[in-house]
Amino acid sequence: MDNRGKAYLVGAGPGDPGLITLKAVEILKEADCVIYDFLANPKLLEHASPDAEKICVGKKGGTKTISQDEINDLLVKKARRMMVVRLKGGDPFIFGRGSEEVQRLAQEGIPFEVVPGVTSASAVPTYAGIPLTHRELASSVSFVTGQEAPGKEDSDIAWDRLSHGDGTIVFLMGWKNLPQITAKLIDMGRPSATPAAVISRGTFTGQRTVVATLDSIADEVERQGIKPPAVVVVGDVVRLRDKLSWFETKPLFGKRIVVTRALEQAGSFAKILEAKAALPIVFPLIKTVLPSDTRSLDRAIKRLSIYDWAIFTSVNGVRYFVERLEKLEKDIRELKGVRICAIGSMTAKAVEDLGIRVDLVPKEYRAEAIIEALGRRGI
Amino acid sequence: MDNRGKAYLVGAGPGDPGLITLKAVEILKEADCVIYDFLANPKLLEHASPDAEKICVGKKGGTKTISQDEINDLLVKKARRMMVVRLKGGDPFIFGRGSEEVQRLAQEGIPFEVVPGVTSASAVPTYAGIPLTHRELASSVSFVTGQEAPGKEDSDIAWDRLSHGDGTIVFLMGWKNLPQITAKLIDMGRPSATPAAVISRGTFTGQRTVVATLDSIADEVERQGIKPPAVVVVGDVVRLRDKLSWFETKPLFGKRIVVTRALEQAGSFAKILEAKAALPIVFPLIKTVLPSDTRSLDRAIKRLSIYDWAIFTSVNGVRYFVERLEKLEKDIRELKGVRICAIGSMTAKAVEDLGIRVDLVPKEYRAEAIIEALGRRGI
Repeated sequence: MDNRGKAYLVGAGPGDPGLITLKAVEILKEADCVIYDFLANPKLLEHASPDAEKICVGKKGGTKTISQDEINDLLVKKARRMMVVRLKGGDPFIFGRGSEEVQRLAQEGIPFEVVPGVTSASAVPTYAGIPLTHRELASSVSFVTGQEAPGKEDSDIAWDRLSHGDGTIVFLMGWKNLPQITAKLIDMGRPSATPAAVISRGTFTGQRTVVATLDSIADEVERQGIKPPAVVVVGDVVRLRDKLSWFETKPLFGKRIVVTRALEQAGSFAKILEAKAALPIVFPLIKTVLPSDTRSLDRAIKRLSIYDWAIFTSVNGVRYFVERLEKLEKDIRELKGVRICAIGSMTAKAVEDLGIRVDLVPKEYRAEAIIEALGRRGI
Repeated sequence: MDNRGKAYLVGAGPGDPGLITLKAVEILKEADCVIYDFLANPKLLEHASPDAEKICVGKKGGTKTISQDEINDLLVKKARRMMVVRLKGGDPFIFGRGSEEVQRLAQEGIPFEVVPGVTSASAVPTYAGIPLTHRELASSVSFVTGQEAPGKEDSDIAWDRLSHGDGTIVFLMGWKNLPQITAKLIDMGRPSATPAAVISRGTFTGQRTVVATLDSIADEVERQGIKPPAVVVVGDVVRLRDKLSWFETKPLFGKRIVVTRALEQAGSFAKILEAKAALPIVFPLIKTVLPSDTRSLDRAIKRLSIYDWAIFTSVNGVRYFVERLEKLEKDIRELKGVRICAIGSMTAKAVEDLGIRVDLVPKEYRAEAIIEALGRRGI
């Protein structure tokens, strides 16, 4: 498909890199240019091609680096010539001015698609163990921007409306105006004892949650030094957290763990740690390299057929052997007639992935065991 | 990781199979048992292992096949012995009683995790070209269950609250009670000229959208024969659809197209059609099979080294050749010394994926071109 001259407004989800959609990843892979906010987890950019242009237009802590009009202009300029992904935190059509961006694209006649994302308004409370609705506690949920100070005379938010009833209210970007927001809700009729929660860095392993009541939450957040980005939840459903907190109670939650394995092997272990909500810091202390002098290896490769056995001792060994074959403009067919021994099941798998049968995998990983096993084969 | 005795409450997204998250797919892959609703797209079950037990507990058209208590019991019973995924349409913590399910798991001391999903409340309007918020039109959005008839005396929904202000309202499962819902909103003060939309089978290629005003939408939906599942959107943002509709305006939107290619090749073409919002119906009229008598192929394989060239004419040919090698307990090293010709770039790629160099790819795909090309090589 020719996607030049097309723009995709794509939701990146709330932060946990697993909460991006399959469709978003597929589209990111094909992008010529990605225009993204600070909010999106930088890891998500790794789904895009290394050759794709990546432009950050986000705001950090409320300080705009570039105006909305400038973002719209940039989007139009790029989308005329290439396939552009506008990557936005959460869901692109819930706040964040995504609607204005596609309005501009439509005006300019540029074709576009919108890929909805998991909104922080739901995912962040979920990771804090707070369901937004509950049959007995809340039969509706409202998402409100917390960026507008309720003192403002011509406020667009119907504060009286929000303050009545039992519905859950979620304020996105509500950290800065928290004292005004809570005072206004109480002022307009919401009981001051209504449970409230503020969740900072939600869905990340650095997540922090403070629970209090509508009249005490702002003080509590200040006392505990909670910083943005933060999501504010108001309503009786907050009480369910006592029993339903599942993320912050994980055994390794928030623990920073240094992974010293070689870079190629660190990923799988880091993944296990992440599943337990730890924060793996990959700091490889081991690096496997080719010998600087490959002459003896090259000599062996050139006359492989005289050998009875080839013993592969590691996945790296298999990889470097294939690399060297390619350098010498040969391929694995050179191993015809040579029997193959692999040390360890991962090494055996690496050999089999080359389409080659493994003749022997010794039970133990010591030199003696190999010699013994080969011995039993009459060598 | 040992996940037996653990339950995952997982959001499946709104229907478009691309709108499931990476995390949901990863967890589905490991599930021993998937308990799912009718609402989730059946295609999503394909992410689970063929060996996983799959139990449907959903309701279709409001008819419950199994009570919520029975679902909770089943969940607990299964999760004690294996890794269970409870797959729910949309987001598991926005309606749909997911909170009750994890409350029960918590009560029983069974560890659980919740994977948020893309909610239909946002994705379905997005696919209809309706953003939920807009700087000038709506500074909040409320999600309300449409299953409760507003005539009910002890209604949990604060209708007066919803009826005031400019916020967008989304009713999930609101089709059945649409006349009562709209009447109640007008009755409580929302202007009867407020734009409203009903979107049926949202995010699927069978999506249908009806736009009218609060006082005419119920009649219009009946007149046009719109059926559930449907999402109702009320608010000024509905007007944006005129300019922002992007899914229903795709060139092949809703077209049923029969794909007659062989099953192995149909997928990639079906994907291109789906990207254009068509509905591919895979109906293979071609099937590539091995010759029933493989004796001559086997004979050739057994004395491969006497050949100068091997010509692969298709991806299937490469695959069957490798399969046959395996059957004969040989591998691709047998091709040592044989030069390789591949017809077409896909065939060449299939050969190279085996780790083997291709010596010749003729420019044209006719027998004459191959002979000529080989001829230039002095054969």
